[in-house]
Amino acid sequence: MELGMIGLGRMGANMTQRLLSGGHTVIVYDQNAEVVASSASGGAIAAQSAADLVSRLSAPRAVWVMLPAGAVTDSVIDELGGLLDAGDAVIDGGNANYKDTLRRGENLSALGIHLLDAGTSGGVWGLVHGYSLMVGGDRDAYHRLEPIFQTLAPGEDKGYSHVGPTGAGHFTKMVHNGVEYALMQAYAEGFELLQARQADFDLDLTAIAKTWQHGSVVRSWLLDLAVLALEEDPGLESLSAYVDDSGEGRWTVNESVDLAVPTPTITAALYQRFRSRQEEPFGARLLAALRNQFGGHAVREANSP
Amino acid sequence: MELGMIGLGRMGANMTQRLLSGGHTVIVYDQNAEVVASSASGGAIAAQSAADLVSRLSAPRAVWVMLPAGAVTDSVIDELGGLLDAGDAVIDGGNANYKDTLRRGENLSALGIHLLDAGTSGGVWGLVHGYSLMVGGDRDAYHRLEPIFQTLAPGEDKGYSHVGPTGAGHFTKMVHNGVEYALMQAYAEGFELLQARQADFDLDLTAIAKTWQHGSVVRSWLLDLAVLALEEDPGLESLSAYVDDSGEGRWTVNESVDLAVPTPTITAALYQRFRSRQEEPFGARLLAALRNQFGGHAVREANSP
Repeated sequence: MELGMIGLGRMGANMTQRLLSGGHTVIVYDQNAEVVASSASGGAIAAQSAADLVSRLSAPRAVWVMLPAGAVTDSVIDELGGLLDAGDAVIDGGNANYKDTLRRGENLSALGIHLLDAGTSGGVWGLVHGYSLMVGGDRDAYHRLEPIFQTLAPGEDKGYSHVGPTGAGHFTKMVHNGVEYALMQAYAEGFELLQARQADFDLDLTAIAKTWQHGSVVRSWLLDLAVLALEEDPGLESLSAYVDDSGEGRWTVNESVDLAVPTPTITAALYQRFRSRQEEPFGARLLAALRNQFGGHAVREANSP
Repeated sequence: MELGMIGLGRMGANMTQRLLSGGHTVIVYDQNAEVVASSASGGAIAAQSAADLVSRLSAPRAVWVMLPAGAVTDSVIDELGGLLDAGDAVIDGGNANYKDTLRRGENLSALGIHLLDAGTSGGVWGLVHGYSLMVGGDRDAYHRLEPIFQTLAPGEDKGYSHVGPTGAGHFTKMVHNGVEYALMQAYAEGFELLQARQADFDLDLTAIAKTWQHGSVVRSWLLDLAVLALEEDPGLESLSAYVDDSGEGRWTVNESVDLAVPTPTITAALYQRFRSRQEEPFGARLLAALRNQFGGHAVREANSP
């Protein structure tokens, strides 16, 4: 079928490519003309603006938005509200905060436009493996767009579903990413323990990770990725121990607090990322100061070797 | 090849069955004559005692011990030390504490007997899927027994490896199980958050879990098991929220403390299991008492509805 795609970053460009391979017609727009040209050379139809993109679609139109969460997504969805007609649909495949999605959904709904929130997982591997899609929004609009989801998903009958009304998709994706934080941290801690005794036991961490891939209770796709990383650089010496976060873990922990649902591992995983980015945290300096104050325990001076 | 198997619980009996299907000769012994008879009816050779089992094996002998960690394993391995000859091998496939394994390994080594510690993962599914085996111990003995590991593993060339000297297998398995605790808790927290908003968003937790199985970053074998559990009982209403532990999580946390390696998610996962078994913990009653003391905050009387 026919789809507009706004936002041709790594995810949007790959999804466009997968949709084109699936026989769909994709009209693309991005502020960066270079990535538009690149998608066009792969078979997409280039648009010069959001308005131009909308004008090239036939009703009922569907525009997939694949942009960073926050102001950019807001402004594009606002603009689409002015360009689309009742019965058209916007699909937000980005990692929006579900509360923003609820608000945007209400605004579009007042104009008769559907907002489908398609929580999308799969990263750069999605192009080949397909994406896992958790879709919220109007059920009829969802079914009309099902051929799109089927092509993006790993199979025609798997890896995508309608999870609830508008907001449910991004809510589910938020929780998904919270789980992902804790899963990643679990492996991180295990391999750090193995590494701490590596010399004593002559352990080959890569061989152990590969052994766990088959038949063990901890086998997973994240473990498969750990194997790839360890095979490339067994000591991970090319990497700094600095870990970013892109927001969904924070939202999950905020949601836990709002609901008074304990999420100790997700929370600890998020905090470990924060800790990884601190070089000389004030808290640890305060701890050292207190130990010194009450017990005369030795401290390390700042900038000591 | 020829192998003795002592301990025909769920794991030992299934492993015997898998070895018999693989064409090996298995001489079995267990204190419970019923399970010995059951394995014998499946093609194993029944022994009346450990001594009888050893007498039916030809040198260099190999005896797999699949017993609960602790005293039982100790007494059987001690007994085997008196029955076996130099060059023979004991394989401990149970979940022994690696420190016990180091001690037992030294005792057997003084007699010229090899102790291989084969950390074994796969649970009841191992019979069909094969087991993941992390084997420590003498490398030559390991290679001599490789046909056994190949049959037990998911494939001839995968899911088993020699991870280091005696002790390394159980150390690796201990860490594996620590990781498993945190992975399980990560999913537990995610599904609890989904469940907390289930009514608001009309979420189908089983459908969401199934969507995550394909293409998503959180896909794993544990997620596959979550799908099976949710399909059987979507609200998990047949279960009590009581979670046992069998020791390896505790050992992992103890090891973290000994090594001063932070394992916040593994530790939190273990503590959540402890908390699940407390009905009216003293700590929470103390918290309530303190809130009442300093702020006059309302408390709930014991046995109030």
